Amino acid sequence: MTLFNRRKFLSTSIFAGLAPLGGTEATLHEVSENETGKSKWDLDSPALCVDLDRMERNIRTAHQRLQGSGIALRPHAKTHKCPAIARMQMDAGAIGICTAKLSESEIMLENGIPDVLMTGVNISVPKIRKAMELRKKYKGFIQAVDNPQNAQDLQDAAKAAGIVADVVVDINVARRSGVLPGRPALGLAQLVDRLPNLRFRGILAYDGGVQHVKGFEKRKERNRTGMEPAVMSYDLIKKSGLNLEIFSGGGTGTYNMMAEIPGFTDVQIGSYLFMDHQYMIIGGAANEALYDDFEPSLTVITTIINSNYEKRLVTDAGSKAMTLNQPPALVIGEPDFLYNAGSDEYGTITFERASKSYKVGDKLEVIVPHCDPVVNLYDRIYGIRNDKVESVLPVLARGKSQ
Amino acid sequence: MTLFNRRKFLSTSIFAGLAPLGGTEATLHEVSENETGKSKWDLDSPALCVDLDRMERNIRTAHQRLQGSGIALRPHAKTHKCPAIARMQMDAGAIGICTAKLSESEIMLENGIPDVLMTGVNISVPKIRKAMELRKKYKGFIQAVDNPQNAQDLQDAAKAAGIVADVVVDINVARRSGVLPGRPALGLAQLVDRLPNLRFRGILAYDGGVQHVKGFEKRKERNRTGMEPAVMSYDLIKKSGLNLEIFSGGGTGTYNMMAEIPGFTDVQIGSYLFMDHQYMIIGGAANEALYDDFEPSLTVITTIINSNYEKRLVTDAGSKAMTLNQPPALVIGEPDFLYNAGSDEYGTITFERASKSYKVGDKLEVIVPHCDPVVNLYDRIYGIRNDKVESVLPVLARGKSQ
Repeated sequence: MTLFNRRKFLSTSIFAGLAPLGGTEATLHEVSENETGKSKWDLDSPALCVDLDRMERNIRTAHQRLQGSGIALRPHAKTHKCPAIARMQMDAGAIGICTAKLSESEIMLENGIPDVLMTGVNISVPKIRKAMELRKKYKGFIQAVDNPQNAQDLQDAAKAAGIVADVVVDINVARRSGVLPGRPALGLAQLVDRLPNLRFRGILAYDGGVQHVKGFEKRKERNRTGMEPAVMSYDLIKKSGLNLEIFSGGGTGTYNMMAEIPGFTDVQIGSYLFMDHQYMIIGGAANEALYDDFEPSLTVITTIINSNYEKRLVTDAGSKAMTLNQPPALVIGEPDFLYNAGSDEYGTITFERASKSYKVGDKLEVIVPHCDPVVNLYDRIYGIRNDKVESVLPVLARGKSQ
Repeated sequence: MTLFNRRKFLSTSIFAGLAPLGGTEATLHEVSENETGKSKWDLDSPALCVDLDRMERNIRTAHQRLQGSGIALRPHAKTHKCPAIARMQMDAGAIGICTAKLSESEIMLENGIPDVLMTGVNISVPKIRKAMELRKKYKGFIQAVDNPQNAQDLQDAAKAAGIVADVVVDINVARRSGVLPGRPALGLAQLVDRLPNLRFRGILAYDGGVQHVKGFEKRKERNRTGMEPAVMSYDLIKKSGLNLEIFSGGGTGTYNMMAEIPGFTDVQIGSYLFMDHQYMIIGGAANEALYDDFEPSLTVITTIINSNYEKRLVTDAGSKAMTLNQPPALVIGEPDFLYNAGSDEYGTITFERASKSYKVGDKLEVIVPHCDPVVNLYDRIYGIRNDKVESVLPVLARGKSQ
């Protein structure tokens, strides 16, 4: 079982000199004698699948497009929750990965991913202690902080653990996480720098909302203005003489706009691996209607279980298999199908035109509405190549919302 | 914090003489030395909790209210996905439980729940074979069917397994699952009856949409008219001389309206255990605004992780911990809080008035929007009594959407 066409992959010049994949990946995959080699159409449904050729191209494309820009990749694992995929991202040249939650960070670190930047804060005493224990064990773990009390709490736990912990200050650009920009951000950075058991490494500023602004130029403008408070904070901190080796943020919608942000170092790109209906419709630099920098690779295979009504098909993938996110799932090959996943257990498709006549038992492949929360519903992703199961990728951080 | 005045509640005579719940559930719980006895406020968040007093009262209430009506309870396990809770339902007098999917059925049967009626159909050959293998092993497994080809396929698999399998015909009342009512329903029932390796046990008719119709009388009327095609099918099948020992359907919104449906035998009540914001606002027979037949028992404990903006709090429970269902989560004790779980990782609360001043690290307890899909996000439910962890209930069928 190989996840990559290694020969083809390694022959591209941008990866020259990189170590081949291997080593730990065997431990990151389920070995499934029964399922390897099976057609994706024969999988028990609903089944979550990733087309490996497409995902591997997406990984390469991101690196290629950012080559020479001075911007590195620090992909966000909240999207895939899967150490095997994080390993592929690291092997392709990512400088580390991001995680949202502590339990997610733990899964990544304990499954061989050495460099993990947790973009969320840890607030409770048990979480702070556990984070510092993780940092003691794994030197590549970096923790975000966004308020002074939390910095002090981290200091106390780091001291108790006998370590100097790496910390980044998260700066609020989306009224969701982060310290207020400007003087509060500077004050927090200086506090972190002053505390003896913390090491200030830099800043984060992530705006989730801007990622899905439709239209490349509009999105670019909003990204530029939205990042201004973070840039202003960056300047203040830099002038104060502090270390600022990290200025991280951005995502799939803005990855190729971040080079114009002064001081910016790396993008927390996540959905680029899989794509989804939400991202497909935001438009790109080259294609105003369809965002085609990356290829949709993540799909759900679902079975038609009822066709008793005209112009209506019922499937086995409802909200528990597809989420309620909008825009809805896209049925591949059937642009007129409207997929409603509003029922917990059933998907309902309504249509005026179909490319063929469907009957009970037929399977459909659909592109998901929003990849992150769909992945979080499944224990495994089937790695598909040429329509056959090549590998089974356990979603080890599934449900790790703590 | 207690949501109910327990003294007042328990002084009502309807609970006199009921046996305490218990029995085999010890084997169905995780033993967690670290967490038993812990205050719910000290749980790592987000944490899914059920108040055991309230859930147990809900279980008793449902039986009490249907006593003498001739209607039995066959609770739907798609809500809790938890064999430990199914065991409590059986011990309280349920005649069996329902399941939506085959993988869910397997979890219930293999964890000591003897009587399982699967309300969904199995279409693929591997699923049909597995269902018949389960029936061979567990005599209490009943399988739904809603089209003639599927009946034939079940027959073939039952024959191959050397069994006579119990089958119910699902009748379409909500354009989602089921055979068309009337002659198609009769024809399918007769086919099942004729096939030598199938045993026709009766019919199902479940209308999910009517459950949430607001206003008791309006809902009752829609339930009555909605069920007419099923009743007509029931009459046709009965006149044809077939066995009709099961006529199952209904849910938490209609459980006390089903006695007026001729021939009806048992309700597939599910959410009554937990309740949620969706059900609280449909109104009941006694209270037009608040549906208070059952008490909200399922909550998520979440932590405030950011309070940098006025009249805005950010929590650690977003859509991956709360779903996108509407109406939104209700923060207990804070009627003015509007909880938005639209972000994957963060909940955002906006408000004009608060009962107190909140700071980072404070915890909130919230009633979930819609219980079923929220449960499906968690590996365990903390069983809480008097605000302390009494048990940990593994959600063994979590993610079992196949």
